[in-house]
Amino acid sequence: MTGRLAIVGLGPGDDRYLTPEAREALDGADALYGYGPYLDRVPERCGQARHESGNRVEGARAEAALRDAASGAQVAMVSGGDPGVFAMASAVCGEIEAGPESWRTLDVVVVPGITAMLMVAARAGAPLGHDFCAMSLSDNLKPWDLIERRLDAAASAGFVIALYNPISKARPWQLGEAFTRLARHLAPTTPVVFGRAAGRDDEAMTITTLDQAHDVKADMATLVIVGSPETRVIARQGHAPLVYTPRTAAAVSA
Amino acid sequence: MTGRLAIVGLGPGDDRYLTPEAREALDGADALYGYGPYLDRVPERCGQARHESGNRVEGARAEAALRDAASGAQVAMVSGGDPGVFAMASAVCGEIEAGPESWRTLDVVVVPGITAMLMVAARAGAPLGHDFCAMSLSDNLKPWDLIERRLDAAASAGFVIALYNPISKARPWQLGEAFTRLARHLAPTTPVVFGRAAGRDDEAMTITTLDQAHDVKADMATLVIVGSPETRVIARQGHAPLVYTPRTAAAVSA
Repeated sequence: MTGRLAIVGLGPGDDRYLTPEAREALDGADALYGYGPYLDRVPERCGQARHESGNRVEGARAEAALRDAASGAQVAMVSGGDPGVFAMASAVCGEIEAGPESWRTLDVVVVPGITAMLMVAARAGAPLGHDFCAMSLSDNLKPWDLIERRLDAAASAGFVIALYNPISKARPWQLGEAFTRLARHLAPTTPVVFGRAAGRDDEAMTITTLDQAHDVKADMATLVIVGSPETRVIARQGHAPLVYTPRTAAAVSA
Repeated sequence: MTGRLAIVGLGPGDDRYLTPEAREALDGADALYGYGPYLDRVPERCGQARHESGNRVEGARAEAALRDAASGAQVAMVSGGDPGVFAMASAVCGEIEAGPESWRTLDVVVVPGITAMLMVAARAGAPLGHDFCAMSLSDNLKPWDLIERRLDAAASAGFVIALYNPISKARPWQLGEAFTRLARHLAPTTPVVFGRAAGRDDEAMTITTLDQAHDVKADMATLVIVGSPETRVIARQGHAPLVYTPRTAAAVSA
């Protein structure tokens, strides 16, 4: 029997956002690999092995899953959101490149999912309705000055900015620094959306402005979207405001 | 009865990527609105009205759907991919802002979907595995010099770039111009992925390099991903190569 590794996006966490292809990949697996909280979202099934690991050992997890698939198992690696966006697909590719030649002949499939920024944007209206970028604020795997350079480039060129991994216990100051940096380019009234656990039961959305954003609590389950100069907020009686970026854009001043 | 407008992401086109929430929103609608080819993906149902329109009339389509919802109907507006990414959610928000005050009290819900760049990235490996941006190459709604400025900013800061609406009969030269512009910042060997109809039966993937990209045919169903200086290609015997961007990044030279 030939092994296979499917890297499966679970989406934001609620079953309503799990695609049929993802469900099929989970159902057909002999073994599941993943970070504990993501694995916990998949119902246990008799005869299906579960290999749980921490959130800082992506390389080791990818290697273990590849070994298992190389030995003939049908393996599913679970990932929150989309596996291709700041998640496991890149880690698996890295291990394949560094690993034995035989891993290159393995059947590897990436099953896409709803990534956090799409879920948060949906809840807020359409803040990603025009050109945007997605950045991880974690400086564990890249230097902070590169992050600042990218914030400068994105904000000054008029991109909306989605910030993944905005903050953690080990990285308490980076999000505030990012807001300070963005304020060099963007008006204090620029809309900022905080989406925590979007698409889950404990979802919490906060819509504020760049000059107030420092006061909003965020954690690793939060995705932050910072608007562009074009992004607008529609106040609505009895409903949360709608935040959207129009499809039409004028020239941005230099 | 209170009306409701759900703006529903159909994903890349195959039912395997339609989320349960999207299916529920379609099933529960009295009326469907959408661009013809997207509407064609939804099975006809007795008693459900279907309002088809062309791909250049987003504002009028949004307005008609809002009127219908305001009169008490359960309306679903269908969108390919994710409705929040270069699609209908922003158009609906624009009509709400410009429309009668009563539209602001309507129940409006955005149902996210798998957007084209996630599907194409999944098929290629993990090209969006690190910081990236998404841009529409259409200069129908923004000036071309703004597009060039954003290409410069994104490429020089080391973002991977996903290009939506790369080309059409009315816009034949923009994609080639974009590759020429990007070549100012990126090496000729930079990986470029063309994903046509990804996730559908007639899917076609092409993996090439920036200096060869001019020769690849593209159309409105194509999504193009241009790598960053960090993006890598893994050759594999008997399989398509894997394209991925590592999670680790070094400083980008100025």
